[in-house]
Amino acid sequence: MKIDGTAYRTIWLSADGWSVDIIDQTKLPHEFVIANLKTVEDAAHAISAMLVRGAPLIGATAAYGMCLGLREDPSDQNLHRIGEILIATRPTAVNLRWAIQRMQDHLSETPRQDRVAAAYQLAADICDEDEAICSAIGDHGLSLIEEISKRKQGETVNILTHCNAGWLATVDWGTALSPIYKAFNAGISVHVWVDETRPRNQGAHLTAWELGKHGVDHTLIVDNVGGHLMQHGQVDLCITGTDRTTAAGDVCNKIGTYLKALAAMDNQVPFYVALPSPTIDWEIEDGVADVPIEIRDGHEVDYVQGLDSNGAVSEVRILPDFSASKNYAFDVTPARLVTGLITERGICPASKAGLASLFERDVA
Amino acid sequence: MKIDGTAYRTIWLSADGWSVDIIDQTKLPHEFVIANLKTVEDAAHAISAMLVRGAPLIGATAAYGMCLGLREDPSDQNLHRIGEILIATRPTAVNLRWAIQRMQDHLSETPRQDRVAAAYQLAADICDEDEAICSAIGDHGLSLIEEISKRKQGETVNILTHCNAGWLATVDWGTALSPIYKAFNAGISVHVWVDETRPRNQGAHLTAWELGKHGVDHTLIVDNVGGHLMQHGQVDLCITGTDRTTAAGDVCNKIGTYLKALAAMDNQVPFYVALPSPTIDWEIEDGVADVPIEIRDGHEVDYVQGLDSNGAVSEVRILPDFSASKNYAFDVTPARLVTGLITERGICPASKAGLASLFERDVA
Repeated sequence: MKIDGTAYRTIWLSADGWSVDIIDQTKLPHEFVIANLKTVEDAAHAISAMLVRGAPLIGATAAYGMCLGLREDPSDQNLHRIGEILIATRPTAVNLRWAIQRMQDHLSETPRQDRVAAAYQLAADICDEDEAICSAIGDHGLSLIEEISKRKQGETVNILTHCNAGWLATVDWGTALSPIYKAFNAGISVHVWVDETRPRNQGAHLTAWELGKHGVDHTLIVDNVGGHLMQHGQVDLCITGTDRTTAAGDVCNKIGTYLKALAAMDNQVPFYVALPSPTIDWEIEDGVADVPIEIRDGHEVDYVQGLDSNGAVSEVRILPDFSASKNYAFDVTPARLVTGLITERGICPASKAGLASLFERDVA
Repeated sequence: MKIDGTAYRTIWLSADGWSVDIIDQTKLPHEFVIANLKTVEDAAHAISAMLVRGAPLIGATAAYGMCLGLREDPSDQNLHRIGEILIATRPTAVNLRWAIQRMQDHLSETPRQDRVAAAYQLAADICDEDEAICSAIGDHGLSLIEEISKRKQGETVNILTHCNAGWLATVDWGTALSPIYKAFNAGISVHVWVDETRPRNQGAHLTAWELGKHGVDHTLIVDNVGGHLMQHGQVDLCITGTDRTTAAGDVCNKIGTYLKALAAMDNQVPFYVALPSPTIDWEIEDGVADVPIEIRDGHEVDYVQGLDSNGAVSEVRILPDFSASKNYAFDVTPARLVTGLITERGICPASKAGLASLFERDVA
């Protein structure tokens, strides 16, 4: 999508033809910084320190991380080693594993002397495929917004989203925000309620930034507000992303998604989850019982980052020095609370049967 | 309650015998500052700028604000004027109105020359009554915690609370936290999950501080976490406060309370609301439709206050300069989601009949 009129992806080959450029998302929204990755360790750090985040972009970064690692040593042993390094960065992200596995499967069958070139080709393909998937998600999700816009006779459609599942979370377009960009580009009047999404404030730092840079009307709210808005008819539609969807349609996404889904159900607001199919985990059904939830460092809870009065990015500590915190990064929204799943193949009910109707061949 | 071993109330007559001391709660948890109020305008500012907050403490501060105003001019006209000044400070707080009305009713029947002394006496009575009410709430709520502790055979009882309804919100003891202090003082093992409560972070700034200063085990969590904890059996009981309870048992409290009540219902976790009866609004039944919700300045959302790296209290801006926010301060939790109301007269169902069973004479 566009930043001040210039089209960007979130990850691309640098001008040198081999190193990798990314947008350092830890610096947004106050500074726009491009970071350069030269080693597999750079790529692993970019993922674990969340310079890149979002399931599809993590996968793409891991794929390019494999390229950087193989460039130094294309041996079988190293192919295994760098996969292990990258897989250890974020335990919850299912298509991190998917991207690494795909690279390893393909490259282990490629002669050693061709591996580096083949790796770069496959990483580029993974990026192109992700853009196509996200664009298709947007086309399918657009139909939901068009329908509400018609019912409201062109009045603004109010959409609530949580965390950042925009183009910054993918290679381009985004997942949850892709239908919104498609609607905006089609001239439909849309307004987005942006959950700030503590502890890392991806809503305030990323979603507000990318919507604003593209020109989409939006309002930041704290995570506590969505239920009140839904009680008062101020939300027509919720769309979130997901890091992992179970075979039964349970959705593991940023902590707090479950609370919004409960409020949507209580107020008959449609609650959709947008996802590229690589984030489906066909091996797990009961998300609440079986999806491992990452517990991150309490520092993210204890401190809030922003722009200080001198215009510098800094952080402040919000709790007393004698108090501790606990930082659960994700929660699971049971399928019963999800109106539908927006995938690159269409929209389906959040259920085993629903997913099977779109992905029958994958299940078999 | 105690701060580093010394017993405090949140508001008291200063050593000069006429001006009023309060704890400046905007400075907590990083600085412990006592502010001195000398005029009705000081008192109004203390309420509107939230140096004091919490329904009962707002009422007590308004009562002393009337004293300070009458000290300058005890006329009928001024009695009316200072009431107007104080009532304009916080539109949602029902016992702000209650305290001012009570002062005005009593003082308008008091001869002018006796008004100042009578005002101070009544303000002191209001404080003593509030302490007695909160202590009684704690005694009643203690029974719930004792019961869970017995069922868990003495294992730690995990209680989730939202915002600050502790002793800092009242004259002493608190409402939601009063049963917790009573349990702690009785030697029951309790642990409190403290919602940080954006936008103002009263959980991080006040609840964590007062629990820690009294020695109660607690963990700070962001507002998004409670649902996940309840899904995983890590919450035995929720207790919140309320700014206004309708005659039908709907509860208007800090924004986000509704989301926690939904999660509690979805996971069969008991959800109790502690309240002093002056916060009951007998004239309203449907809280969602009829309780006006204060919309505060967006600055509270856009900026987060804390301790910077130099050890100074400062604030950082979290969203891009081109984005706007909206700051709804309260929401309404429908009675159907509330397991029970803990009042100074006992615990009752959150319903018209439930409230009538305890407050029959008040309804008549």
